[in-house]
Order: sequence, then structure tokens, then C-alpha cells
Amino acid sequence: MASPAAKRAKSDKDTPYHLIYWPGIPGRGEPIRLVLEDAGASYTDTATMENGMFTVTAQIADDNTGDPANPPPLAPPILKHGDLVISQLPNILLYLGQKLHLAPQFGDEAGDGAYIVNQLALTALDGLSDETHDTHHPISVGLTYEEQSQESLRRAKEYVAKRLPKFLGYFERVLKGEASGEAPWLYNGTFSYADMVLFHCLDGVKYAFPRALGKLEKSGNYERVFKLYDAVKQRPRIKAYLESNRRQKYSMGIYRHYPELDDAA
Amino acid sequence: MASPAAKRAKSDKDTPYHLIYWPGIPGRGEPIRLVLEDAGASYTDTATMENGMFTVTAQIADDNTGDPANPPPLAPPILKHGDLVISQLPNILLYLGQKLHLAPQFGDEAGDGAYIVNQLALTALDGLSDETHDTHHPISVGLTYEEQSQESLRRAKEYVAKRLPKFLGYFERVLKGEASGEAPWLYNGTFSYADMVLFHCLDGVKYAFPRALGKLEKSGNYERVFKLYDAVKQRPRIKAYLESNRRQKYSMGIYRHYPELDDAA
Repeated sequence: MASPAAKRAKSDKDTPYHLIYWPGIPGRGEPIRLVLEDAGASYTDTATMENGMFTVTAQIADDNTGDPANPPPLAPPILKHGDLVISQLPNILLYLGQKLHLAPQFGDEAGDGAYIVNQLALTALDGLSDETHDTHHPISVGLTYEEQSQESLRRAKEYVAKRLPKFLGYFERVLKGEASGEAPWLYNGTFSYADMVLFHCLDGVKYAFPRALGKLEKSGNYERVFKLYDAVKQRPRIKAYLESNRRQKYSMGIYRHYPELDDAA
Repeated sequence: MASPAAKRAKSDKDTPYHLIYWPGIPGRGEPIRLVLEDAGASYTDTATMENGMFTVTAQIADDNTGDPANPPPLAPPILKHGDLVISQLPNILLYLGQKLHLAPQFGDEAGDGAYIVNQLALTALDGLSDETHDTHHPISVGLTYEEQSQESLRRAKEYVAKRLPKFLGYFERVLKGEASGEAPWLYNGTFSYADMVLFHCLDGVKYAFPRALGKLEKSGNYERVFKLYDAVKQRPRIKAYLESNRRQKYSMGIYRHYPELDDAA
């Protein structure tokens, strides 16, 4: 049979990117938007398209078995680029890191650095996005917050007391390390998509846990981490994006602000 | 300053792999072992080395800031190959997929397939490893199971009723889809590390939830998924490995068998 590659038309750097994600929340689509915005890439976004929701639900329908070149996605975010259709946030970021030159390039002399950037992005998403989400959904994504608010209190308390400082401490340590190179970036003195992911995660945690994160910031133990946050926020295209109407407000997505959870510790 | 690549000696295909992971459980080290075993690669494993535990704890110590070429890891598994030190299970698998040719190769005509294999591996690990783990630790990894057993019951019930069928159904759909190519493999009719990851995840869930998974298997709704499981188990090097003393028994790791959780649904 023909290989998927043969069935897939080549996409070049002028091919626009298509982000397929739920409208109404920044969610797991947001790090992708930030990366595309920072690179000045041409992209469409179902969040701002009429009936965009239906594009999402068609992709994740129980009868979608994908196409000759691509398996179906389990869940959004989904990226379509040329004839390639991929899902899983860290995977999409890995792809964009190569295409938009926001990571060392596979095949180059220093290409193994792409695995380091991937490691850092995965770690930020684990501790400062997935675990943050689970503070308001510790039992099931199929139940409302109200149906698991007691368990949420307990989980949030542990998260704020132990996990949040652990992950901030880890990234401070990475930034202290020699491999991070010149400040403020995580790896080799060069801005990469891992910096963007860490920025976004901090921004989300700041929304969800303003008191808890504020205390940790004031402790002075994570100065390098918060300097990185500020440095990303001041990047001209990011600054413009954050002020634009393309930037959606946090609401009932990954990052939610429940004052009782913020005060749990 | 010198770039990390300049500070990093090149590793070639004869360079042995060094897996740094907790002794005593298969854990998140196991998919790495399986991939190395299947490829017949030369590797060392702290699980079977005297004082291997200290190699792990030195890597994740609070004062480890990495080396000139590599940031520190947050947690094991950690892979050392030549002078490259990387962590995060899906990241290590991505790397080994390239080195051991268990995925399409970046830079080849069909190289974008590597993102598809990465997507499938990430999805299996999300739903059939991380979420499975969380059935016995829904509140905190810093507490024992006994300290969160009530919440575990509730989470396990949701997991068995909703999440487990969702993920099995997803992979059945992937295997039904045209991009999977000839059976039994997930993508392009070719064995990849994503097949190995799915095998391992099913094996772990089978240990943790034998009744629940048995029922789902008997339903006949996931025949392709269980055929893939059998096909991986019969690969000659995997068969030999599973029978060897290098294969550790499941115990108190990611996959744990608590009969009350298995019966929760």
C-alpha cells in the first residue's frame, strides 16, 4: 500500500496552520496560539470561527477513524498543517518548535537540544497545567466541580503546599544551571517554546491561585522564574496579542479561580 | 559561550544506553526497558545495579543543577546516552524511537509520521498509565493510598466506567482507521514504540484491574486492541525478556491491584 507520506502533500513554511480547539476558553489551545503569535505565523483558529465548535466535535466524533494518512485525535487541541493532522499539546508544540524554529532543529549538530526543550515543556505542563487542572477535578472530568468540591479542597491544599513549590523550585534550578546559558531563558541562552509554555503555565496559575502564587513570588526563592515570566510577557508580539481580542479570558477551563481552593493551604 | 552541542560528545549507535530509575517496580522505567529489549540494544539499568538507588537520588537532588550541556531532571526515568541526559518518559521514548528506528525518522520523506507515533504514545500514557495511577492517588502523591482510599474508590469507579472504555475505544478506532495500515500495528502497518507503549499500558491495567479489563475484553468491542497486545507479547525478544529475571513484578508502583478499586464500578 502507499505509505502515509505518499498520501500526504508536503507543507511548506507558507502553509497556514489551523488550530482546532474549543471556543470560549484559552485552555490547552493557548500555548499553541502563543507560539504561533510569537512567530508571526499565519493561522486560523476555530475559537474565532463561526461554527468552529462543529469542526472540533467532528474531529472527536466516535465514528471518526481519521483519514488515509492520519489517525483520529482523542481530544483537542488538534493542529492541521497541510495534510498533516496531529493532536496532543506537547506533540503539537514539538512540531511547531521545528517548523517555527523555536527549538534546536532535529538533524542539526545541536539537534539533541530539541529533546531538552521537549523535556522542559512536558514538565511544565505536568505540574503547572495538568496538576493545576486536577485541583478542581480530582475525581473525574465527567463530574462538575460542585460534585467533587470536597475532594478538590483536599487536593488543592496538597497542590499549593507541595507540588507548586516543587515545580517552581525545579524551574528555578534549571535557570540556575549552566545549560540554561544567559538569562532569562531555560536552555542555551535562547528563547524556545519551553519558555513560552512556562510563561503560559505561570500565567494560568496566577489566575487560579493568585494568593498562593503571590506568596511564593514574594518569598524571593523563584526570582529567575518570575523574570522569565516578565521577559516573555514583554516580547512585542506577545504583548500585542495579550492586548488583542484574540486573547480569550480565563473562565471555566484548565485554570479556574475558586477562592476556597486558593485559600486551602 | 560554547553551545551545549559543543560541550556534548557525540553518541553513536554503539554507545550503550543508561536507564536511571527506581529499583523495585517496573514503573515509568518499563516502557523504556521494553523498547531497549525489543531493539536488542546494549543498556544498563540502575534497577539491577548495586546502589542504583543513589544514582537516582543524586540526579533528583535539590542541589543538582545539571551540567554544562543538560538541565537537571525533575524525576526519573532518566536516560543517559553519551553525554546527553534527558528525562520525561514520552521524551525518552521519542529519542529512542529515532535512535533505534522504532518510529519514522525525522528528516526522512515520511518523517512527519514521528509526530503521529508520539501522539499515540502520549495518549496511551495519559489514559492508561497516568490516569490509572491516579485511581490510587487521586489527592496527592505525598499521601499513602490508605490516606486517600475513599477518594480512590470514587475515582476508580469513574475510571472503570468512563475513562477506560473511552481510551480502549479510541485505540480500537485508530486500528480500524486507514492510517493504521496492515494489522496489528497502530500506524502505517509498521511496528513502532507506540505499539510497545500500548502493550505495556494494557499489561499494567490488566494487573491493576483484572476484572474490569476482563469484562471489556470479553465484550468483543476492542478486538483489534487485544490482538495488538498479543502480537507484542509474542515478539521474540519481548517474550524472552518477560520470562527473564530482568522483568520486575508489578507491586506498589504506577499499576497496583486493590480488589476494592477493581470492583468499584
